[in-house]
Amino acid sequence: MSRKANVLAIPAIGKLDRKIGQLSQQLAQALRNAIHKGELKAGDMLPSTRSLAASLELARGTVLEAFEQLVAEGFLESKRGSGTCVIFSPQTIPSPKVEPTGDIFLTESAQKFARVAERIKTLSPRPFAVSVPVGDTAPDDIWRKIGNRIRARGPGAPSGYGEPQGVRPLREAICEYVRKSRSVHCTPEQIIITSGTQQGLYLATQILLDSGDTAWVEDPGYPGMTDIFETAARDRKMVRIPVDAEGLDVEAGKVIAPQARAAFVTPSHQYPLGMPLSMSRRAALIDWAKTNHAWVIEDDYDSEMRYAGQPFPALQGMGPNNVIYLGTFSKILFPSLRLGYVIAPEPLINAFNGARILMDRHPPSADQYVLAKFMSEGHLNRHLRKMRSVYAEKRRVLMEAVTALISPDLATLQPTDQGMHMVLWLPGFDDREVVRKGIEAGISLRAVSHMFSAGNSESGVLLGLGGFTDEEIYAAVGKLGQLLAAMSRDLLL
Amino acid sequence: MSRKANVLAIPAIGKLDRKIGQLSQQLAQALRNAIHKGELKAGDMLPSTRSLAASLELARGTVLEAFEQLVAEGFLESKRGSGTCVIFSPQTIPSPKVEPTGDIFLTESAQKFARVAERIKTLSPRPFAVSVPVGDTAPDDIWRKIGNRIRARGPGAPSGYGEPQGVRPLREAICEYVRKSRSVHCTPEQIIITSGTQQGLYLATQILLDSGDTAWVEDPGYPGMTDIFETAARDRKMVRIPVDAEGLDVEAGKVIAPQARAAFVTPSHQYPLGMPLSMSRRAALIDWAKTNHAWVIEDDYDSEMRYAGQPFPALQGMGPNNVIYLGTFSKILFPSLRLGYVIAPEPLINAFNGARILMDRHPPSADQYVLAKFMSEGHLNRHLRKMRSVYAEKRRVLMEAVTALISPDLATLQPTDQGMHMVLWLPGFDDREVVRKGIEAGISLRAVSHMFSAGNSESGVLLGLGGFTDEEIYAAVGKLGQLLAAMSRDLLL
Repeated sequence: MSRKANVLAIPAIGKLDRKIGQLSQQLAQALRNAIHKGELKAGDMLPSTRSLAASLELARGTVLEAFEQLVAEGFLESKRGSGTCVIFSPQTIPSPKVEPTGDIFLTESAQKFARVAERIKTLSPRPFAVSVPVGDTAPDDIWRKIGNRIRARGPGAPSGYGEPQGVRPLREAICEYVRKSRSVHCTPEQIIITSGTQQGLYLATQILLDSGDTAWVEDPGYPGMTDIFETAARDRKMVRIPVDAEGLDVEAGKVIAPQARAAFVTPSHQYPLGMPLSMSRRAALIDWAKTNHAWVIEDDYDSEMRYAGQPFPALQGMGPNNVIYLGTFSKILFPSLRLGYVIAPEPLINAFNGARILMDRHPPSADQYVLAKFMSEGHLNRHLRKMRSVYAEKRRVLMEAVTALISPDLATLQPTDQGMHMVLWLPGFDDREVVRKGIEAGISLRAVSHMFSAGNSESGVLLGLGGFTDEEIYAAVGKLGQLLAAMSRDLLL
Repeated sequence: MSRKANVLAIPAIGKLDRKIGQLSQQLAQALRNAIHKGELKAGDMLPSTRSLAASLELARGTVLEAFEQLVAEGFLESKRGSGTCVIFSPQTIPSPKVEPTGDIFLTESAQKFARVAERIKTLSPRPFAVSVPVGDTAPDDIWRKIGNRIRARGPGAPSGYGEPQGVRPLREAICEYVRKSRSVHCTPEQIIITSGTQQGLYLATQILLDSGDTAWVEDPGYPGMTDIFETAARDRKMVRIPVDAEGLDVEAGKVIAPQARAAFVTPSHQYPLGMPLSMSRRAALIDWAKTNHAWVIEDDYDSEMRYAGQPFPALQGMGPNNVIYLGTFSKILFPSLRLGYVIAPEPLINAFNGARILMDRHPPSADQYVLAKFMSEGHLNRHLRKMRSVYAEKRRVLMEAVTALISPDLATLQPTDQGMHMVLWLPGFDDREVVRKGIEAGISLRAVSHMFSAGNSESGVLLGLGGFTDEEIYAAVGKLGQLLAAMSRDLLL
C-alpha cells in the first residue's frame, strides 16, 4: 500500500496533459523524472499496471507501454508474478543543460587543425580573390538544364551506395579530355574521382608514404599541401626544395633528400610563382623517380588557363608508372561543385579506393553524371574557350592597372603566361600587414611569405584574376597603390 | 648551310599536314620529335626563322611561334643576333608508352588500403543488401523539384568556395530536427556538415586522439570504424570492449583501458547486433567520460527507424560537453547524396573545420541548400513517416519468411526493434562460406564474424531490409534456407 501511495504521490504524474495526447510517452517521462530526482529508487516496487491505470484514469495498455519502454531503457525490471521493480537510480544523472565549455581538454591534433582553419579562411568575393564563377565566368544555363534532366531518372536520380572510384561515364569523359588536352596516358580504370585537388593531395600523402618516409615539397609551395604534412600526416616527413626560374630545383632535391619516397610538384604553373618546370628539369625529375622507385605527384592546376604559346604536355606522359596526376574542375567550372580526379598507375587504384572508403565512402553520384554529360556533349571545351578569353582580358586589365597605379619602386608583378592569379612582389614590406590593411580598405589579398619555409621567405601578395569588372579591378589596384605608398612613407619616417 | 640542310632533312618536318592546320603546333612537335630521336642535339644551331619559313613555305610568324614554344619548354635558346640553338637533348627521353607496371613498389600503407577496398565491396542491389532507395523507399518528386528550383539561382547555383563547416540554412534545419527528434542539445554553430557518418568517424579519430592515444571500440563493431584504426589512424590505439545484452560493457572498458581518450559507440542500435545501450550503461559511460576528460563518439545511425516503443533520446543530451554526435542522411534519404553531420562542443569546431579543409575543403554546396529546403518545408518528416511504415512492413515480412523457411535448428534471428538490418546467427557455420555460396545463389549477404576481434568471433550474416518486394524477400529467404540445409548436411557427412 505504501508503495502505491509513494508512486501516486510523484508530482510529475499529476501533470499528464490529456489534451496533447501521447499519454504513454508522458507517463514514461514522468517516471524517468521521478527516478532522476530520487523520488523512485532502486528496489522500489511499482503498483500493478491495472491499479496505476485505474488511479490515473488511463487505459491499461497505455501504462503497459510506458513500463515496457522503461524496461527497455534499463530503469525497470518486470518479474513474472511479482510485479515491476525499479532497478536503476543514479545518485546524479548528468544534467541535460548546456554546460560551460571552458575546461574542455583539446588534443595537440585538435589545436593544430584549429590553427589551419584560422589560417585558411575563405576570402570575401571582391578583388583580388580568385572568385569563380562570377559574371562572365559562370557556367551558362546548359549546366543547369543537363542537371535537371540527369537527376530526373536513371543513374543520376537518388540511388544507393556508389563505387569509391567514381562513376564510369565520368571517368571515360575525363580520360578522353586529359588525353587530348594534356597528353596524359591512361585508361578509365586508372582514374579516381575526388572532391578536388586537396583530396588528391591528402590521399597521396596517406597512400604513397609510410610513417617516417620523406617527401620533397616545393619552397615556396601550396599551403594546403604543407599544412597536410604539419597536421594530418605529421608522421611523414616533408623536406622543402627550392624553386628557381625553371621551377623545382631537382639537383638540390637530390642533395637534400636523395632517398625521398615522393615529390609533390606543380609543373605546369608553379604555385605560387607561376613559371613552368623546364623540360630538362622534367626529365631529371622523372629520371630520379625511376631510379629511386619514387613517386612524382603532379598537381596540374590551372594548366587550362594558358594565354600565350602552347601548353606544356603533362609530366605524366613522360613517366606514367611514376607519376600521380591531379586535376580539378574547381577552377575551370566552379569550386562549389567539389569534383576533381587522380590518375594513378593501376597497381595503386585499389589503395586509393580503400583510403577513399574510409574517408568518405565515395563522391556524391548525381553531379558526376551531370558533369560526364556536360563533357561528352562538348560543353566543357566550349566553356573553357570562353573562360580563357575572359581571363586573358582580366589579366591584361590587371597588368595595365598595376603599371598605371602602383609605383614600380614599391612593387613588381611576377611575369607568367598562365593561371588565374599573379604574384605582386613587395620587397621591404611585411606582406601580412599589407593583407590586414587591404581587408580594412575592402580588398581581398593573400600573403606569399608564409608559403616559404621559415627563414627563406619573400614578401608579396597574390592577386586573383577573379570575375570582376574592369572598374572594380582599377579601383582595387588604386586602393592597393595608395596603401603601399602610405605604408612606404611610414617606413621612411 | 650544313645546319640548314640538317634541319630540313628531319623526316618529321616533311609530314606537316596543311589540311589539318595548326602548323606552328605541328612544327613544334616535329622539332621535339627530332630532339627526342637525337636528330637534333644540344649545341646544334637552327636555321633562321626567315629561311626555315621560306623553305617550308610557312609564314614566318608560324615558325617564330614554334620556336618560342620550344624556348619556353627549355629545348631551345634564342640569343640576340646569333640565332637559335638546341640546349637540351637527353640521351633517353622516357618513352610515353604505357609500360608494364609489374615492378611498382607499394608502401605498406598502400597495401593496407588496398585490402580495405577488397574487403568492403559494394553489394549487388538484391536481397539482403541494404539497398535504399528502391521502390517505396525512394524520395518522391518533391526532392527533384526543389532541386531544380534551388539550383536555378541564388546560393544553390554554381558558386565559389564555401565554408568548411557547411551552409548555414542546412545547419539550422538539422539543429531543429535533432532537437525535436533526438533531444540533442546544440546550436547551429556546433554542427559540421559531413559526407556521412564515415567522414565523421574519420575526422573524430584525427582530431580527438593524438598519436599513441587509446580509444574504446565495440566488439563486435562497425568494420568502417575498425578499419580506420588499422590503416589511416594506425598511430592511434584501438582496444576492443565487449558488447552484451545491454550494449557496450562500460565496466569492462574501465578495467581494460581506464585511461582511454575516447569511446566509439552505437547507443541507439548497436552495430551489428541491434540492441540499445541501457540507461544505466549510458549514465556510467558519461560519468567515465567526464571523470577522465574523455570523448564519447555517438554514432546514432538508424535511430529514426524504430518500430516499437519510444526511441531513446540521444546520449548527447546527457553530456553535451563530452559527446560528439554523428548523424547521416544516407539511410533515411539516399546514400548517393553523401550528406551527414557532426555535432560537437564549440571549442572543437575550428579543429573539425581545419581537418575538413585539408581532407576535401568543404561539402558540395548545391545539395546542402536543396536538403535545407526539403527539411524546412516539412518533407523530410513526411518522408520519414513513410519510410518507417515501409520498413516496419519489410521487417515483418522478413521475420515471417525466416520463421517459415529456415529451420530454427540452423539459424536464429537476433531480436531488435530498430534499424534497417537484422542479424541471423548461424552457429556451427563458417559465415564467410555462407556469404560466398549466397552470392553464387544470387543473394547479397555480409558476414558478421569479421566484425568481432580475433578469437572472439561468432558466426552470422546481416540481412538488410532493403526496398525489395515481398516475393523477392520470400524467394531469397527460401534460397538461404536451402543453402543452409545443404551445408548442414555436408557438415554432418
